[in-house]
Amino acid sequence: MRTTTGWRADGPGAALHAVSLPRRDLRADDIAVRVDYCGVCHTDLHSVNHAQGPVVPGHEFTGTVTEIGPEVTGFAVGDRVAVGNIVDSCGECAMCVAGHENFCHRFPLMTYGGADSDGSTTLGAYSREYVLREGFAYPLPDGLDPAAAAPLLCAGITVWEPLRALGVGAGTKVAVAGLGGLGHLAVKFAVALGAEVTVISRTSGKADDARALGAQGLLVSGDAEAVAAARDTFDVLVDTISAPHDLGPYLRLVALDGTLSMVGHIGPVELDSMDLLVGRKKLSSAGSGGRPATREMLEFAAAHGVTADVEVLPSAQANEAFERVARNDVRYRLVLDMSDLD
Amino acid sequence: MRTTTGWRADGPGAALHAVSLPRRDLRADDIAVRVDYCGVCHTDLHSVNHAQGPVVPGHEFTGTVTEIGPEVTGFAVGDRVAVGNIVDSCGECAMCVAGHENFCHRFPLMTYGGADSDGSTTLGAYSREYVLREGFAYPLPDGLDPAAAAPLLCAGITVWEPLRALGVGAGTKVAVAGLGGLGHLAVKFAVALGAEVTVISRTSGKADDARALGAQGLLVSGDAEAVAAARDTFDVLVDTISAPHDLGPYLRLVALDGTLSMVGHIGPVELDSMDLLVGRKKLSSAGSGGRPATREMLEFAAAHGVTADVEVLPSAQANEAFERVARNDVRYRLVLDMSDLD
Repeated sequence: MRTTTGWRADGPGAALHAVSLPRRDLRADDIAVRVDYCGVCHTDLHSVNHAQGPVVPGHEFTGTVTEIGPEVTGFAVGDRVAVGNIVDSCGECAMCVAGHENFCHRFPLMTYGGADSDGSTTLGAYSREYVLREGFAYPLPDGLDPAAAAPLLCAGITVWEPLRALGVGAGTKVAVAGLGGLGHLAVKFAVALGAEVTVISRTSGKADDARALGAQGLLVSGDAEAVAAARDTFDVLVDTISAPHDLGPYLRLVALDGTLSMVGHIGPVELDSMDLLVGRKKLSSAGSGGRPATREMLEFAAAHGVTADVEVLPSAQANEAFERVARNDVRYRLVLDMSDLD
Repeated sequence: MRTTTGWRADGPGAALHAVSLPRRDLRADDIAVRVDYCGVCHTDLHSVNHAQGPVVPGHEFTGTVTEIGPEVTGFAVGDRVAVGNIVDSCGECAMCVAGHENFCHRFPLMTYGGADSDGSTTLGAYSREYVLREGFAYPLPDGLDPAAAAPLLCAGITVWEPLRALGVGAGTKVAVAGLGGLGHLAVKFAVALGAEVTVISRTSGKADDARALGAQGLLVSGDAEAVAAARDTFDVLVDTISAPHDLGPYLRLVALDGTLSMVGHIGPVELDSMDLLVGRKKLSSAGSGGRPATREMLEFAAAHGVTADVEVLPSAQANEAFERVARNDVRYRLVLDMSDLD
């Protein structure tokens, strides 16, 4: 057993506090990663608020390889790596074989809160070290800032997946509803893919930001006239709004045969089937991605200079970060610098 | 004003009884149609059961042109025609211009129960004559039996639309859940399009029928082992089950990037977003079709010999037909022969 230091919450809504954490001794195909930067995801906050037991959050991180198991072939000590919210899968089911490990029929091993094969519960990357199978770590491409790249591993891949699966490219009209951690990356990726992008927001307050991110404009969701004029317009609408909301008004903005992709929604959804029927519209939902898609996303991000707009905080400010995420006071992703744990 | 005879229900759940009905004098681009056969659709029963006032049902019919307005160019007296559930639309909105009159932004004029431009409420085709703009009547192709073709105009186009919009063809794996009026036509069309088709049913009772319709087999929805083996299998699942039901088990049968298309569901739908997320699945809903699609469907039906399996009843048995539809005692569509109204 190895030990490291990290931030743990010991019950529902409890504050994170620094503790010593166990990490397993390296298996043959394991690597040990010094965690340098870990993004603060809404899921982290949700997991702590609904914790059944102790939780160490953190599932979008970048770091440096410090040790490798004897059978590791893909990484060497000193390599820059990135890790997302999945650190293992069965490897045998049809989804794993097809490279969609995030849909593993036996359920993928989550980076934290997952049931590991040795019976332990995984502990996340709000810590200075993480140990995982090399197959679930990705080389961090040259040119990507490790702090700004960390959010690509959850927020980034979550929006990349539907954009790619739905064939977004030159000529595609894309709307991104909600401009937050997921939304701002959806805008950046869609713009880099060649799409014409519109941000949908409750107010015009983020219009300058939307344009700075590459969007052509911002549609205010409460502007009835503008909304009516935009009916049946968007081939793909990426809905990143985390609060429960009526999908009807957003589906009416989707073009004939277009798709509304909910990202970051987990749980029940209610809608009127007429809102799908009229215009042959489709509803989908996305979260995370498989290994080939994650590698592709990172390479695309490096080639097109796409990273998150981040604010880096010392990891000791993790509780403050949670408070800011809770009140949506983030433009557009907080990242914890783990070096203060040394 | 012209008059004809038809079957009307005068309040919620009231019996249909024969009455004299008004039809408008022909406008310049109108045709008068002697209704020969009219299919009995679930919607007819539903409309009568929830009637706010008198209802003359009937929106999938075939007949013979008996008179034409002075500007009619597409039909002559004696022509065989078919008419569906839409008899007019604004003609100017983006959807109408694109040939999706069923999605008309000002709402298409329904064949019965619709608010016509002269202020009257449209009266359906459980009657001996119908008058409509020629543009919303379709030539009934040679070779199609007029009784067996009548259900193509609602049940048929409703399942044709999603099959075509979702690109069903050779190599596509299609499942059809529920083998009724819509379902049996979905099987026939999908088979004729070259797909490999499986019927999903509560029992194995319709296995022989499924094969006779061209399906490769029948999956019993309660057979846990068979259902587990069919996970992530179908590119397109056409869900024709009219009763409210959990979509989760059906979504799990849909293949990666596949679509579950609800047909004949009107109203609220609840689902767990995880059932869409895992496997990047999509949900859609279909009903009716535009004019180009309806023409295409009729031509395809004629070329491939696709019509409904019908039982023809004298129109005087319309109430008995409703009772049988209500208890699902139909294999697979009842059609009223209107000649007894002479």
